[in-house]
Amino acid sequence: MDKEYAIGIDLGGTFIKGGMVGLDGDVVYSTSIETQAETGPEGVIERMAGLGRAVAEGAGIEWGQVRCMGVGSPGPLNTTDGIVYSAPNLAGWENVPVVKMLEEKLGCCVTLENDANAAAYAENWAGAGKGASSMIMLTLGTGIGGGVVLNGDVWHGKDDAAGELGHMSINFDGPRCNCGGWGCIEAYASAPNTVRRALEGIEEGRQTSLKAVLDGGDQITAKGIYEAAVAGDQFAAETIEATGRYLGIAIASFVNIFNPELVVLFGGLAGAGEMIFGPARQEVARRAIKPGSYTVKIVPARLGKQAGIIGAAGCALRRLEISA
Amino acid sequence: MDKEYAIGIDLGGTFIKGGMVGLDGDVVYSTSIETQAETGPEGVIERMAGLGRAVAEGAGIEWGQVRCMGVGSPGPLNTTDGIVYSAPNLAGWENVPVVKMLEEKLGCCVTLENDANAAAYAENWAGAGKGASSMIMLTLGTGIGGGVVLNGDVWHGKDDAAGELGHMSINFDGPRCNCGGWGCIEAYASAPNTVRRALEGIEEGRQTSLKAVLDGGDQITAKGIYEAAVAGDQFAAETIEATGRYLGIAIASFVNIFNPELVVLFGGLAGAGEMIFGPARQEVARRAIKPGSYTVKIVPARLGKQAGIIGAAGCALRRLEISA
Repeated sequence: MDKEYAIGIDLGGTFIKGGMVGLDGDVVYSTSIETQAETGPEGVIERMAGLGRAVAEGAGIEWGQVRCMGVGSPGPLNTTDGIVYSAPNLAGWENVPVVKMLEEKLGCCVTLENDANAAAYAENWAGAGKGASSMIMLTLGTGIGGGVVLNGDVWHGKDDAAGELGHMSINFDGPRCNCGGWGCIEAYASAPNTVRRALEGIEEGRQTSLKAVLDGGDQITAKGIYEAAVAGDQFAAETIEATGRYLGIAIASFVNIFNPELVVLFGGLAGAGEMIFGPARQEVARRAIKPGSYTVKIVPARLGKQAGIIGAAGCALRRLEISA
Repeated sequence: MDKEYAIGIDLGGTFIKGGMVGLDGDVVYSTSIETQAETGPEGVIERMAGLGRAVAEGAGIEWGQVRCMGVGSPGPLNTTDGIVYSAPNLAGWENVPVVKMLEEKLGCCVTLENDANAAAYAENWAGAGKGASSMIMLTLGTGIGGGVVLNGDVWHGKDDAAGELGHMSINFDGPRCNCGGWGCIEAYASAPNTVRRALEGIEEGRQTSLKAVLDGGDQITAKGIYEAAVAGDQFAAETIEATGRYLGIAIASFVNIFNPELVVLFGGLAGAGEMIFGPARQEVARRAIKPGSYTVKIVPARLGKQAGIIGAAGCALRRLEISA
């Protein structure tokens, strides 16, 4: 019988997700366990191996039908050698040979991919970007990550460090970014920076229902701002729309650079729908060069939280295909 | 006997350059003729065909040894169908089927490439970027163009419109750019915008030898500013260095996006050496994410004005290779 499945593992600081993925990117079975990062690399990798076996058992699929396992991990990392150099949320991880350790434990082929790249690959393989010859994805959250998929392959760059799309500067004189740069798109449009802009507006005396949240001793969140906007708060709507505009400014440059078929927005505020996509598309139409400015499609991601496992499995299958 | 040569044609508004190029990117013979754009597409294409024959004759190479001809042209254009949609310096050019017309005249395989992309390909094939697995090139001049070469191939994008690297915005609120956008790198670091910044400084009362040029009724050029800087003019040096800094700000973002092995600066002020490259490298070190910020090499182009013909020939050979 052909090996018709791959296991995808999505390594996070709190949870490890695992899934059995078919050759079309369909998830047959998925589950998750706690990372228990305090057990260090050896402990976490033992848990990943165990999760792999549990996924096979849960899916009712024999190990012999599993072609490979792909791991999506935070980085920096080395996809060629299968090494995680370090991981912000995993204390003690330094130059961990994840692929070698897992292959020894499992006896099957394992590959490693950056988690944001894996999610982008997934959307190109089986999600919003299915069939697109070129796609860039921005992952919106505490930070802004990204992935570039060209002709069906993730673009990794010389040191597996490409695709840091959130760290294109849109204003060289702008606010300092967590990456050390200035005016990166992340420094304007991430969830915390959307909150920062709201707080600045409130300090300047803007009228908004969000002030009552603060006065009540609670913190403002990007989600809270979005909900206030939906409830009719004008200032909150402007704040979310500005996030969309900043994203559109960045996407206009990506259009000029890549002329991509598709731009996918993933996670967090990408769920805010037209309040984000409307202003983003407007800025692209205003700023980017024709014909890329009007041929590009700007759409939300489709796979949600399963993108990580689907992409990890997909990248592993793709690697096997290329090396075959 | 094997077909060991390709003809490269570099179509410009004033001159058409042509050369016989060997399979290693070496130019065996080259020459140029006036474009005579006023003769319209039919006339210019007849001249291009004649130039191709003249190149073969001048090189002493029989037509049977020529594998193909590549044409580098201003755009927008369509590399797949071989059509130039329009060309700013060639009046009357609208949807011209250049490839079909030349193939009918010459009876050999012809391909079409954007001129900036052809130059970038040439530098990757046989110039400053020889052997680099990823390279981006910025062409500095009246405008700022670019080309992206990944794994040995030009990245064209969905509509052959990728690589407009001069139109990444480095300040969404910056000066209006010729492309219709705002704060593009071209709007800061092109030759005319370097002059603009110098004129602004003079108007603000900065002391400089350039003022005497203006007072004498002459115009200031980017070359003139560079020469004044070399002669010891402090303000002129600051102006050129600022061009280098703006380029470095843009390159830092390209490093985060592409993690390229190499960035090549081509033409015009790229000849200003350390006065441009020093500040550019400093900004990349300050702003871009590690390790890409220090693994990237930022170097001047090597092929000079022959890059266009070498790249046109090289892209044609590459196309044949892929389709074979």
